[in-house]
Amino acid sequence: MNPIRVGIVGYGNLGKGVELAIRSNPDMQLAFVASRRDPATVKLQTPGIPVYAYDSLAEHRNDADVIILCGGSATDLPTQTPEIASMFHVVDSFDTHAKIPAHFAAVNAAAEASGHVAVISVGWDPGMFSLARLYGNCILPDGKDYTFWGKGISQGHSDAIRRVEGVVDARQYTIPIQAAMDAVRSGEQPELTTRQKHLRECFVVAEEGADLKRIEKDICTMPNYFADYDTIVHFISAEELKAEHSEIPHGGFVMRSGTTGANHEHKHLIEYSLKLDSNPEFTTSVLIAYARAAVRLAAKGEKGCKTVFDIAPGELSPLSAESLRASLL
Amino acid sequence: MNPIRVGIVGYGNLGKGVELAIRSNPDMQLAFVASRRDPATVKLQTPGIPVYAYDSLAEHRNDADVIILCGGSATDLPTQTPEIASMFHVVDSFDTHAKIPAHFAAVNAAAEASGHVAVISVGWDPGMFSLARLYGNCILPDGKDYTFWGKGISQGHSDAIRRVEGVVDARQYTIPIQAAMDAVRSGEQPELTTRQKHLRECFVVAEEGADLKRIEKDICTMPNYFADYDTIVHFISAEELKAEHSEIPHGGFVMRSGTTGANHEHKHLIEYSLKLDSNPEFTTSVLIAYARAAVRLAAKGEKGCKTVFDIAPGELSPLSAESLRASLL
Repeated sequence: MNPIRVGIVGYGNLGKGVELAIRSNPDMQLAFVASRRDPATVKLQTPGIPVYAYDSLAEHRNDADVIILCGGSATDLPTQTPEIASMFHVVDSFDTHAKIPAHFAAVNAAAEASGHVAVISVGWDPGMFSLARLYGNCILPDGKDYTFWGKGISQGHSDAIRRVEGVVDARQYTIPIQAAMDAVRSGEQPELTTRQKHLRECFVVAEEGADLKRIEKDICTMPNYFADYDTIVHFISAEELKAEHSEIPHGGFVMRSGTTGANHEHKHLIEYSLKLDSNPEFTTSVLIAYARAAVRLAAKGEKGCKTVFDIAPGELSPLSAESLRASLL
Repeated sequence: MNPIRVGIVGYGNLGKGVELAIRSNPDMQLAFVASRRDPATVKLQTPGIPVYAYDSLAEHRNDADVIILCGGSATDLPTQTPEIASMFHVVDSFDTHAKIPAHFAAVNAAAEASGHVAVISVGWDPGMFSLARLYGNCILPDGKDYTFWGKGISQGHSDAIRRVEGVVDARQYTIPIQAAMDAVRSGEQPELTTRQKHLRECFVVAEEGADLKRIEKDICTMPNYFADYDTIVHFISAEELKAEHSEIPHGGFVMRSGTTGANHEHKHLIEYSLKLDSNPEFTTSVLIAYARAAVRLAAKGEKGCKTVFDIAPGELSPLSAESLRASLL
């Protein structure tokens, strides 16, 4: 069988993660990378792979079986996914939950019109966590959902701290609160406030001579990002930030607490959790599996926009249905 | 929309669980129960529902949209599932892992020939645990699987103890060993022996005057069931067994430990776990969700035998694809 030829669009953390993840999947090979930057300035980790300009993608329609879009959800994917879905089968990791219906509509129109398969919002949340929520809801309709994130780096919160006057650099860890998770695991189905579920811990490098008290207050009272949470601020040196906080770990927990029985007397807890050393590398590992599924669905004549909810789990595997039944069922 | 009419075949723990679970799913209703016993002797928990003789099922082809088969894997399902799949869409919980390929072939032949959808091996293992293994393998190809069961009652091991001379009754708990789970969670991908993974704890009611030492030895040395495990035997009274060990809890953990990165330097742990007060009621909750999917797939013109690997998660939900994207993705 010919390997699946994967194109990457966007060469940041995600793009680099896809490049590495392809090496762990013998049925796939890297076809090219495309970037909005000048291709001559993009240095890949893999020798011999061409880098194309984003605007020349139409010329390379026959050079990849599927494209993994590695841009950001704020500005890149809303335009790129529909644009590229008119030329290729695509997978993206669009993760602005509230805007998924609009993104779906735009991508679906492009993919239906051109006859391609486009899988959106792939990763771990949305993605694997969404699947855990869906399966949990379907199995235990009399129940309640809980999602906890962390311990891990929130890029958005780290960026927000960097915008505070007098801050040179920062990393923010989202930390789930153990007492809240224990309360859910007890089966009591508690109502939990934002503050009860997560803690925010910040490591901040300040400008020399900056007013640390004022910076701390600006962070802790920032609406949406920190005001509703208990927040801990540590001021550290740039060297310490680099030495201790350069990795991008993340993870979290999806719990479904439900009951069954004539009088709801039996409690059940379904828990799905992730503990990830590298958020982008795990996300790209999920993207790769769904890229395989996109190619398979296209081969069966499907088209249009899909999410993880629409794709049978067996389509993610390089193994045949027979092998899967014999080895993993 | 008309509710989905569900028939139950077999009225033991599973059949009773399905009957209760239907009450939590407003889009479903109980159509009838069929049994190999004399229908006059079968007392349901729901008034007004007919009980039919197993052999008369052909007469009731139009009275149910899907049948949930609640017999045992050893002797009932190998004949019943193909037989009934020739008349109805069906879902079963066939759980003899090694015999799944043969069962699939027999059921698929019957369902293909008659144009029905048959979903086999639905429950939590096989079932939800199989899904956790499959997703884990596809996302982290460089990794290792671990499944731990318990703490929970093993019916097979309890039955095996009851066959020991001098034993009146017994319950056996399978208990995962904490140190083994901790070793997996560390990311070290340990090789674990059978004895290192699970402990077996037995509560035994002996005949008066029986040789307890000999019973204990007979249990602990029993091949396949106990010889490869550390086993703890407690002798208790029939009253205590009834008071303390009448429930049927179970659960377990599926872990996928894997690595990513240019030098496999990033570790990731995916963990799926269940903590169930009632093994049969949880199993039937899964069966109900897949019964809904079977009816939907049939409405789309599909036929033949399926497993949880072949069914898109969204098919399990009573909600539309639009609602699911807006609320759970």
